[in-house]
Amino acid sequence: MLVKVEMAGVCGTDVHYYRGMEKALPYPIILGHEFSVRIEEMGKTPYRLEPHGEDLEIGDRVALFNTVPCGECYFCRFTTKRGLCQNFFTWGITAKCKDPPYLYGGWAEYMYVDQPKAWMYKVPKDMSAKLNTLVEPMTTATRAVERAFAPGGPAYSEGFGPAKSVLIQGAGAIGTLAAAAAKISGAREIMMVAGEARRLSIAKKFGVDETIDMKEIRNPEERIKMVKERFSVTQGPDVVVEATGVPAAVPEGLAMVRPGGSYVEVGHFVDAGEVGINPFLLCSKDITLFGSYGYSEYDYDTAIHLLYKNRHRFPFEELITHEFPIEQAEKAILAAEQGVALKAIILP
Amino acid sequence: MLVKVEMAGVCGTDVHYYRGMEKALPYPIILGHEFSVRIEEMGKTPYRLEPHGEDLEIGDRVALFNTVPCGECYFCRFTTKRGLCQNFFTWGITAKCKDPPYLYGGWAEYMYVDQPKAWMYKVPKDMSAKLNTLVEPMTTATRAVERAFAPGGPAYSEGFGPAKSVLIQGAGAIGTLAAAAAKISGAREIMMVAGEARRLSIAKKFGVDETIDMKEIRNPEERIKMVKERFSVTQGPDVVVEATGVPAAVPEGLAMVRPGGSYVEVGHFVDAGEVGINPFLLCSKDITLFGSYGYSEYDYDTAIHLLYKNRHRFPFEELITHEFPIEQAEKAILAAEQGVALKAIILP
Amino acid sequence: MLVKVEMAGVCGTDVHYYRGMEKALPYPIILGHEFSVRIEEMGKTPYRLEPHGEDLEIGDRVALFNTVPCGECYFCRFTTKRGLCQNFFTWGITAKCKDPPYLYGGWAEYMYVDQPKAWMYKVPKDMSAKLNTLVEPMTTATRAVERAFAPGGPAYSEGFGPAKSVLIQGAGAIGTLAAAAAKISGAREIMMVAGEARRLSIAKKFGVDETIDMKEIRNPEERIKMVKERFSVTQGPDVVVEATGVPAAVPEGLAMVRPGGSYVEVGHFVDAGEVGINPFLLCSKDITLFGSYGYSEYDYDTAIHLLYKNRHRFPFEELITHEFPIEQAEKAILAAEQGVALKAIILP
Amino acid sequence: MLVKVEMAGVCGTDVHYYRGMEKALPYPIILGHEFSVRIEEMGKTPYRLEPHGEDLEIGDRVALFNTVPCGECYFCRFTTKRGLCQNFFTWGITAKCKDPPYLYGGWAEYMYVDQPKAWMYKVPKDMSAKLNTLVEPMTTATRAVERAFAPGGPAYSEGFGPAKSVLIQGAGAIGTLAAAAAKISGAREIMMVAGEARRLSIAKKFGVDETIDMKEIRNPEERIKMVKERFSVTQGPDVVVEATGVPAAVPEGLAMVRPGGSYVEVGHFVDAGEVGINPFLLCSKDITLFGSYGYSEYDYDTAIHLLYKNRHRFPFEELITHEFPIEQAEKAILAAEQGVALKAIILP
Repeated sequence: MLVKVEMAGVCGTDVHYYRGMEKALPYPIILGHEFSVRIEEMGKTPYRLEPHGEDLEIGDRVALFNTVPCGECYFCRFTTKRGLCQNFFTWGITAKCKDPPYLYGGWAEYMYVDQPKAWMYKVPKDMSAKLNTLVEPMTTATRAVERAFAPGGPAYSEGFGPAKSVLIQGAGAIGTLAAAAAKISGAREIMMVAGEARRLSIAKKFGVDETIDMKEIRNPEERIKMVKERFSVTQGPDVVVEATGVPAAVPEGLAMVRPGGSYVEVGHFVDAGEVGINPFLLCSKDITLFGSYGYSEYDYDTAIHLLYKNRHRFPFEELITHEFPIEQAEKAILAAEQGVALKAIILP
Repeated sequence: MLVKVEMAGVCGTDVHYYRGMEKALPYPIILGHEFSVRIEEMGKTPYRLEPHGEDLEIGDRVALFNTVPCGECYFCRFTTKRGLCQNFFTWGITAKCKDPPYLYGGWAEYMYVDQPKAWMYKVPKDMSAKLNTLVEPMTTATRAVERAFAPGGPAYSEGFGPAKSVLIQGAGAIGTLAAAAAKISGAREIMMVAGEARRLSIAKKFGVDETIDMKEIRNPEERIKMVKERFSVTQGPDVVVEATGVPAAVPEGLAMVRPGGSYVEVGHFVDAGEVGINPFLLCSKDITLFGSYGYSEYDYDTAIHLLYKNRHRFPFEELITHEFPIEQAEKAILAAEQGVALKAIILP
Repeated sequence: MLVKVEMAGVCGTDVHYYRGMEKALPYPIILGHEFSVRIEEMGKTPYRLEPHGEDLEIGDRVALFNTVPCGECYFCRFTTKRGLCQNFFTWGITAKCKDPPYLYGGWAEYMYVDQPKAWMYKVPKDMSAKLNTLVEPMTTATRAVERAFAPGGPAYSEGFGPAKSVLIQGAGAIGTLAAAAAKISGAREIMMVAGEARRLSIAKKFGVDETIDMKEIRNPEERIKMVKERFSVTQGPDVVVEATGVPAAVPEGLAMVRPGGSYVEVGHFVDAGEVGINPFLLCSKDITLFGSYGYSEYDYDTAIHLLYKNRHRFPFEELITHEFPIEQAEKAILAAEQGVALKAIILP
Repeated sequence: MLVKVEMAGVCGTDVHYYRGMEKALPYPIILGHEFSVRIEEMGKTPYRLEPHGEDLEIGDRVALFNTVPCGECYFCRFTTKRGLCQNFFTWGITAKCKDPPYLYGGWAEYMYVDQPKAWMYKVPKDMSAKLNTLVEPMTTATRAVERAFAPGGPAYSEGFGPAKSVLIQGAGAIGTLAAAAAKISGAREIMMVAGEARRLSIAKKFGVDETIDMKEIRNPEERIKMVKERFSVTQGPDVVVEATGVPAAVPEGLAMVRPGGSYVEVGHFVDAGEVGINPFLLCSKDITLFGSYGYSEYDYDTAIHLLYKNRHRFPFEELITHEFPIEQAEKAILAAEQGVALKAIILP
């Protein structure tokens, strides 16, 4: 199958890859793993490519799951965590563009979908290309929140659940979408801590009730004190989600979460080095910490629905602050790298 | 402490008690276990009566947790299910009104709160008496939905979670509030099956997307077929909540829930007899069934917040369809018994 | 690949199939879905047939996962419950033996393994053929116990966990293996209720501490009373596992389980009709009921290890009470049907 | 009530307290929070002191739950984690011995039990004083393992469950008891990493299958490599339990646990400072980390039963390597401090 790319997002990892910092990649590659595509040529798909069994036709806008797990390694076969697959294919990341059929990245006019185990969701007709492009980051954000559901009983204050309080570290696309996902799932109140006033004001449209601007409150100890005072009965929010990718955020967030609370680490998709953490904090607060890396095919389904069903409740498309024609892809990368763009997209 | 009752709801169990069908009760009693009260006299409260440590003052509107578990039985001490306490006190249910201080029921002008282990939540100033009266049924409804959270991982389609589909059996107060609780918690779509067109149309204001009117589709097999066709890919909704109290609803609902789905049985607070169920259905569909009986003190907290934070999203007060002065309490009971009232309240 | 069958068990469903009671089967078929096999011819296996990546060689004794889920339906793709697959292949059940290559059942000298998605575990060299034949029923039994793990927190008396009490209904192979699985997983005490003194005495070698013989205590109400008295503090065992396949066992077991406890329904693999159940019991006891049907590929792994690592602790091979040469397969079926054999095997 | 102390253990925190490192304590105090006691005088106990309702008599050996949570703070009322209580009383830790009735510590002949909310378990008659003294550390160890149960589904490789692999860091009393608790709960195999050959050899009697002696393999990177090679398919054990209290153990253990695995941090009961941890490791391995601090009343129940029921399977009493008369309490502290004693006890 051949698909036509409508638009493709720029992810923080794209900047990382562009700078050549991920040595394992088979450069040269065509970047772009967040995208909205339409079917251009059908080809043959013996497998049920659309997981719900929907008919696919030329011209259909689809959410192509951007990864094809190998299906054979331990993690594919024994766990539900496909993000841990040891031998996955990902459009825009793992495919060399020197070898035929060359086109496996989203920053291009077309891509081939010839992997026999691919998944491709037909999205509702009135789901825009921009919303569709946000499916991938929304999947990351939603899974991060869902990780905190895992232990079960919201009623007796384990993990996330309706009426739980949440603090998000970071006002980027993932942090803001995590706020929306938590609000959609019934969060009582959401606080965000980040360093950019403009982004914090956008976040308020996505369910964030209160913000702490790190540019104003520069001392971490002071921020921690503010949070503890704000949640004075529980001594912190029930759940903290780290979505900055900055190591120093982790000990700060662990100090903020309430005793017995849950901490989700979803920001460190790339290695940014060590940070000093006190194990006594982890133990004595009886914290549950969830790493959240990648996602599984079925997580896309949740994200598509949360975006689509709540498209009138939250202005998701406003997250896309910058658009570049493909000739200016480098500008798009710079806009992401310098934090100018909340989410930049490339139009092929 | 003495509290002044602002209003008190009529519950289905009140009808049951009024008819003398619960032999274990220490008649005569003053009925009324759903209520909004204000503090009239402080008395002494050595214990932290308000669980969040809020100061209580005369005139404060409070949500008095209507039960005082004994704290000594196995269920109080080893489990999180206070609804299973073997020796509980409940205003309006377990207290004889022939013995001093007599006033322990909500269908009265005043009630005594002299139980040393009582919990009493100070509610926000702009939370109305009607909303406060709905805290008790909302607690039942919310806990029912939360029961289905228990097994964990929403991502891999266990139990309830964001983007899951829900079917509610019954359009009474519990069923309608369960719909709202599920919607607040991120349900993808909610279907309701019930026998009264008027109630179904009210339910549509509480997050219900589609309805099946049992008066129109009289054959259970046909209703089951409709539900399966509606959820054709999954062969049924992810979660079904039984909130009718009619035994025949159970096998029908078990046939409707998707294989691998969850069934919540919250409707049968009183014994309505047996019904034929096929164990093969339970086994071969790998169903998880959750009974949900009563609630714990802390469940009130969740309900208060879900009601208050969503009071502009859902018209909760419209659930209260009938008001009676206390002199007409019997009329209120009849209105509940005959299904005329969705929720009747009594004004002392 | 061609495998040589060493021995194959007779399951209760085999009797059912033999009597033609499962209309959906593509008769004629070669029965036999519990088996120990050795590799006879390798053939080509492009896929990693052995999920742990172990090298396979001619002569190796392997545990062939007896089912190949389709991998394409909703249940294969979105859930972890492969037992719900809508289009599975199972050796000994779903394959017509009139079509080439004919040999797809365990009651035969050889079987073909040519399904591209098959899983086959290399078992330890000193794991006997009998133990290997018990992998399939042990998988059913283990998953049944694991279902009750699901809600999480053993510490606060939810579900099964170390130091929990268990009652098993039924002393067949599944019930006895479920007792062993529960004991291996740390059960405090295990009671078994069944109708055959001989089987109950065997069960005592598999972790069962106490028994109730239904032939002696013929009145269900009396048995319920005995159980409640035995577990007088909790008013019943924490977990009850139904492994009889007799509908009447279900209401009896639901009456036995403690309030707030868990009930596992694993006995009704075939339709044995309805039974009267009181929904009030399900609701007012706040029961969690788990249907347990089939198993997933990875469940085999657990069962293999529990059997192998505990082979000196429990005399698993004694469960195989009868052996028949393949010419006497009909006798084997009768031995199972009449309850003479706890587990009969067929030697090709 | 007055109880006679039979013997009392020396905990690592006792050394810490003795050295005056915990500034919050109300020195002078009588140390000793692990103990076996007998009832000496009954006094009056209006409350059901024995949670199962067993009759208590003078002379009974009991497991006195060593802490009395306040029952009023947020953590006591809204969560199941009594170890987080903000205002608890603990024998041997929080009570000044200058004030009447003075005797609230285990390193003494008698202790008073006059707290109205105390819990005291009557232990089986043939449960020895030594076994009873081990109830407290066993509670810590068991809860640590149970924390990893929390996320649910053992079948799809989340958290701990039957047939999971476990690695314990540390061969002290907690680490060794955690090994026993994991084995009792069905662990597939248990590896232990510690620095003392003698303790490692004792641990092998408690379910540990393999050991790595840090004195022999001095380089952490080499140890990590050994563990990964040992668990080559899964790339590490399913669960790692940190029971050393040494900060450097944490990054080492996080590197050892398999991707998607669970890490339990139970060793850092006292503040031993920071250590460099890479958040990328937490995120990219999708780790679930559980802090485990203190325990709840009901956790004692589990520990009592695991010790008692398995007293012939594991030689628990051998963990008590040193005994000192109370006059030599200081020697006992030194024996613990210098690591000479695995578990020292004091005989009053």
